[in-house]
Amino acid sequence: MPALQSFLESRRFEVFITVLIVLNAVTIGLETMPAAMARAGDLLVFLDRAVLAVFVVELLARFVAYRTAFFRDPWRIFDLVIIGLSLVPATGNLSVFRAFRILRVLRLIVVVPSLRRVVGGLINALPGMGSIMVLLALIFYVFSVIATKLYGGSFPDWFGTIPLSAYSLFQIMTLESWSMGIVRPVMEIYPMAWLFFVPFIICTTFTVLNLFIGIIVSAMQAEHDAAATAERASLQDEQAQILTEIRALRAEVAALSGNSVKGAGPDDA
Amino acid sequence: MPALQSFLESRRFEVFITVLIVLNAVTIGLETMPAAMARAGDLLVFLDRAVLAVFVVELLARFVAYRTAFFRDPWRIFDLVIIGLSLVPATGNLSVFRAFRILRVLRLIVVVPSLRRVVGGLINALPGMGSIMVLLALIFYVFSVIATKLYGGSFPDWFGTIPLSAYSLFQIMTLESWSMGIVRPVMEIYPMAWLFFVPFIICTTFTVLNLFIGIIVSAMQAEHDAAATAERASLQDEQAQILTEIRALRAEVAALSGNSVKGAGPDDA
Amino acid sequence: MPALQSFLESRRFEVFITVLIVLNAVTIGLETMPAAMARAGDLLVFLDRAVLAVFVVELLARFVAYRTAFFRDPWRIFDLVIIGLSLVPATGNLSVFRAFRILRVLRLIVVVPSLRRVVGGLINALPGMGSIMVLLALIFYVFSVIATKLYGGSFPDWFGTIPLSAYSLFQIMTLESWSMGIVRPVMEIYPMAWLFFVPFIICTTFTVLNLFIGIIVSAMQAEHDAAATAERASLQDEQAQILTEIRALRAEVAALSGNSVKGAGPDDA
Amino acid sequence: MPALQSFLESRRFEVFITVLIVLNAVTIGLETMPAAMARAGDLLVFLDRAVLAVFVVELLARFVAYRTAFFRDPWRIFDLVIIGLSLVPATGNLSVFRAFRILRVLRLIVVVPSLRRVVGGLINALPGMGSIMVLLALIFYVFSVIATKLYGGSFPDWFGTIPLSAYSLFQIMTLESWSMGIVRPVMEIYPMAWLFFVPFIICTTFTVLNLFIGIIVSAMQAEHDAAATAERASLQDEQAQILTEIRALRAEVAALSGNSVKGAGPDDA
Repeated sequence: MPALQSFLESRRFEVFITVLIVLNAVTIGLETMPAAMARAGDLLVFLDRAVLAVFVVELLARFVAYRTAFFRDPWRIFDLVIIGLSLVPATGNLSVFRAFRILRVLRLIVVVPSLRRVVGGLINALPGMGSIMVLLALIFYVFSVIATKLYGGSFPDWFGTIPLSAYSLFQIMTLESWSMGIVRPVMEIYPMAWLFFVPFIICTTFTVLNLFIGIIVSAMQAEHDAAATAERASLQDEQAQILTEIRALRAEVAALSGNSVKGAGPDDA
Repeated sequence: MPALQSFLESRRFEVFITVLIVLNAVTIGLETMPAAMARAGDLLVFLDRAVLAVFVVELLARFVAYRTAFFRDPWRIFDLVIIGLSLVPATGNLSVFRAFRILRVLRLIVVVPSLRRVVGGLINALPGMGSIMVLLALIFYVFSVIATKLYGGSFPDWFGTIPLSAYSLFQIMTLESWSMGIVRPVMEIYPMAWLFFVPFIICTTFTVLNLFIGIIVSAMQAEHDAAATAERASLQDEQAQILTEIRALRAEVAALSGNSVKGAGPDDA
Repeated sequence: MPALQSFLESRRFEVFITVLIVLNAVTIGLETMPAAMARAGDLLVFLDRAVLAVFVVELLARFVAYRTAFFRDPWRIFDLVIIGLSLVPATGNLSVFRAFRILRVLRLIVVVPSLRRVVGGLINALPGMGSIMVLLALIFYVFSVIATKLYGGSFPDWFGTIPLSAYSLFQIMTLESWSMGIVRPVMEIYPMAWLFFVPFIICTTFTVLNLFIGIIVSAMQAEHDAAATAERASLQDEQAQILTEIRALRAEVAALSGNSVKGAGPDDA
Repeated sequence: MPALQSFLESRRFEVFITVLIVLNAVTIGLETMPAAMARAGDLLVFLDRAVLAVFVVELLARFVAYRTAFFRDPWRIFDLVIIGLSLVPATGNLSVFRAFRILRVLRLIVVVPSLRRVVGGLINALPGMGSIMVLLALIFYVFSVIATKLYGGSFPDWFGTIPLSAYSLFQIMTLESWSMGIVRPVMEIYPMAWLFFVPFIICTTFTVLNLFIGIIVSAMQAEHDAAATAERASLQDEQAQILTEIRALRAEVAALSGNSVKGAGPDDA
């Protein structure tokens, strides 16, 4: 249905949805304030449900308009998951889902083009970093197993199991309280523990640094390629002009001498 | 009044104001030392007021000299705000304004050209970063609301309200005591809390990194563009010379053969 | 033996070894879980030994296939050391070697080509950084000796010997608890201690920053060189074409005038 | 005395001095170990004095050889200061100077060419950063005065005087314990203190980041300029060749038609 599609893609509808998302962000924020809930709790809950209803209708409309193409756009899947999370009945063990309603505000990323471009850029930077992230995971796994075996007995809270060790090592990688909080106490029992932790810090810092460098280099490469292509195009343009002039000249000289320039024509690139 | 303008823009006046600002910085610094106040308190207060009086007169003179153009220069607005803050009577609840008198030292940025250039550069780097800062604000708001709902009850000092949560999350983003100080205590009650905080750290670190990369890339792009333009200009210069020579040659060949080169001229770019 | 070589280098064998390494990583991980050991301890130990046996056989096969060339490939030496560590009898004082069996998982780096490329890249970035790392070591040694002499008496735990000082200074370089944990307590006895520690932080941070910049610049240089070479090649290609055309033209003009172009030919580059 | 100069600049003498410096570094290091002092204290002290004597003689020889040119080389001034510090009698209040003898090891930077190049590079990167460091100093001074006035009364240990405030703000800039250690306690008395400290962190982080970016950009610019110059030279070379060919052709055409090419010659660049 092209009419529905053009309505859904219209600038006016985009603004309408943006306003609804911001309004919803405010109402969900106000719900955390007891004073606001006491005064206007019913209104806040009503507004929240009303906005959710509009979002559900919008989603259905998009599904009707695009059919299977709907599922080919990753941003739509993102919308679907976020709105789906809001529809889970948030009672009993699932009460944590009430907190996730605020994720609806992330729909702004889908709706506002400049945010979508930024997030798209961040996500596109990831695949090239695949190998280095596998390497980082490998380093973490190896060091976690060793830490668990060596220090798990004496420091069960920090290194009792592989996940606990991985969390502690993540903390150490971020350099938070690594020495005063973790390594100095461990060294009181195992004096050589620095031989394990200092290399870990150096390895992971160096690997993460290279992850960052990879992202910086590819970002600059993209910028530079665009600039260089434009630059080269303008130089080649002039060169092509020179070549044209020379060939015309050859033709004239040939005409002048009465000899056709056989054998010189085929080298047109 | 061009005479007043040229006086205000003279190198001598610039140096005079710079000296006054530095003198004022010293007197305000000395006022924090009880020993200096006991010995020469009256002198310090007098000097401070005298300098302020000169600044007010300077501001008025600039206003007389430039009229409405005064308000079009953002640096002048900056001057106006800083001097205005000093004129607020600093008594009672407003005694905090006494501390803000030192902001007058920031006038150095306006007066010294090299500082003005550096600060101008920093500020110019910001607009291109608008989208990514909106994204960061969005991430903060969403995580603050979730933290308030999930952990506000058990840890009211850290996550009791949205502003408290935002402050704690800012602390966590800077990696200060994030694990030992905040997340490990939270995990004693909510063992899965790392599923909330570790992704937050990774998201914000990655976003801030991209903010930095954006600034680095645009700084390098500016440098590179200037260099590339000069380089290309010199290459194009030579190519233009080649083209001129070839065209002259064609004209000569045409003259030689007695045929005018109709139809070949229009491709001058 | 070329047949053995082509078998060892076949894609199928690579996948087989990769699967074994991942399987081994899982079994060693499971061995840290008491529940898993109680249920299937014998199986886990058997699998571990079986995989080790395959690795030993693989290593011997490679040795037979490549002979002395085996020792020329640093990745093979890496394999040899890792598998050798697993064969050390892990009893008594050597029980720490049991923990090092997980290092076998690092064989993934040797086997998976994309990981090998990443790690190779990291290692190749190091040699150019040699001088700056010598400088960093020099700064550490000088500051460690001074710290030991000045503060070793009052703070034996932190600065009692040169290695202890070096560890504490490494902690300070990473900025972990440098002020609240170390420098403020030291300043209570030696009020001027900040004159030692703040310059140390600035020196090492600046040096490490330059280490990083060196890596970034050389990474970008490599990327840029590749791009620039391609770009220049395409421009030179066109220029060569122009030159060819002009020379052909000269020959034609020469033929036209009946004079051979002696003396103009030798400037062919 | 050219003979003395060529001896002082000979590779053999450079190696001899390098060996002495490393030997001296070891003896000074050993002096911090009570066990080594008990066993061979006299020998260590003798070696230290012997090396110092050689350094003094070397310095005198350099002075004799180069005369006033000696003082024009900043590295020689550096040598002079370091050796001078070692000659201060280290008794009584001056015993701290004993610790500074290790600074002699820094002579390695002067003697080893690759270290001298690295340190020279670091120092050369500084002048371009002058303005941004003045700006940072300005920010520190302004915030220190405000902190002293606002919080000096309640927290004299942290913000009692301007130097104490500057130290605390430096700690906060490095993000060490800024929130848990300083800002949260301050906020218990002044709940709005985050309005002071969070902008301070953002301002200084952003300024330091720009300091770093400046260094990165100028390092890359230097690399890039060298590459671009070579590249452009090779392109211009070919263009010059083309121009030469075309001009020769014009001369031939002119000769052919019997008309001299007056008026076309002057556009040689």
